[in-house]
Amino acid sequence: MAELDTGLPSVRQVQAYIQEKKPVEVKLTTGDVLAGQIVWQDPDYFRLVNGQQEQFLLYRATVVYIKG
Amino acid sequence: MAELDTGLPSVRQVQAYIQEKKPVEVKLTTGDVLAGQIVWQDPDYFRLVNGQQEQFLLYRATVVYIKG
Amino acid sequence: MAELDTGLPSVRQVQAYIQEKKPVEVKLTTGDVLAGQIVWQDPDYFRLVNGQQEQFLLYRATVVYIKG
Amino acid sequence: MAELDTGLPSVRQVQAYIQEKKPVEVKLTTGDVLAGQIVWQDPDYFRLVNGQQEQFLLYRATVVYIKG
Amino acid sequence: MAELDTGLPSVRQVQAYIQEKKPVEVKLTTGDVLAGQIVWQDPDYFRLVNGQQEQFLLYRATVVYIKG
Amino acid sequence: MAELDTGLPSVRQVQAYIQEKKPVEVKLTTGDVLAGQIVWQDPDYFRLVNGQQEQFLLYRATVVYIKG
Repeated sequence: MAELDTGLPSVRQVQAYIQEKKPVEVKLTTGDVLAGQIVWQDPDYFRLVNGQQEQFLLYRATVVYIKG
Repeated sequence: MAELDTGLPSVRQVQAYIQEKKPVEVKLTTGDVLAGQIVWQDPDYFRLVNGQQEQFLLYRATVVYIKG
Repeated sequence: MAELDTGLPSVRQVQAYIQEKKPVEVKLTTGDVLAGQIVWQDPDYFRLVNGQQEQFLLYRATVVYIKG
Repeated sequence: MAELDTGLPSVRQVQAYIQEKKPVEVKLTTGDVLAGQIVWQDPDYFRLVNGQQEQFLLYRATVVYIKG
Repeated sequence: MAELDTGLPSVRQVQAYIQEKKPVEVKLTTGDVLAGQIVWQDPDYFRLVNGQQEQFLLYRATVVYIKG
Repeated sequence: MAELDTGLPSVRQVQAYIQEKKPVEVKLTTGDVLAGQIVWQDPDYFRLVNGQQEQFLLYRATVVYIKG
């Protein structure tokens, strides 16, 4: 994916999470669950900051779901 | 996938689930099973609302099956 | 994949299963095994009906094998 | 992949297994190991027949290795 | 991906890690966590050197997250 | 990937392993670790020979890392 397609509902949904600074839970293919806020997205990754202010670059294709 | 191909049987099947508000079970690559209704789909994600009205953005490629 | 390439041996093999209503076993990346009949395929999914007449939309890339 | 690129070493290696009817071991992402002979390949799948003459359509991207 | 798109936030973030020689933790789909420094990236792989000066070529699509 | 892009650092790194007959450890998505030498690569697979002279065709996308 070269560019984010901002016409897609999923891209807009994540954009809404970012703008509302919504607390979300993210489940990964490893079974890990991270809680925090998404601060940006691009076609391949999400940037998430958790409650301890730790920063994660999450590979989009290994994020099973975003709950929020 | 830039756009949903509404000519595909699988896209139409999910569209039918959405219109009928059909209860479905969704199994993920993590082994988790979520029960709820799909409220929309796009080329990369499904939006699912479970019985507790929790909302999930499910990555399509990590949804092993939809039973319904 | 926009369209099924009906010239591919794998597509024709699955098509044969569908026409013969052949009982198959399908193994998923989660380790689950489903037994039933494939009723249609498209580029992204298989439709499987099991012995209890339950219906599954199986994501092709998470189906490890079809035994039959 | 629309067509097998017969110029690729991996495609030719599998083709050699097929022509020699070479016994191979195939490991899957599920951890399963199947022993048998590959009888054909296409861009998406391998066809494998095991010692009990059971037939498998193996999804290429979930075959971790072929030992042989 | 033929070339790294240096306009993407994720590519720039990793580039910043490289330039700052920032210690990062990398989680893999196998559950392994590697700690070290990323020394280069390309469209398919990251090069990581750990505290014991061991070198790893990490497949990008199996790196679940980079924490740093 | 139709052809190996020999301009990529990762392709050149693996090419160096091949030319130096460097002993490497390869970790797979199944958790298996294979030790041996890579003897060739193509866009989809690596060929690895282990200490017992067993030969493996490793699917590139299921090789989590190459340590070497």
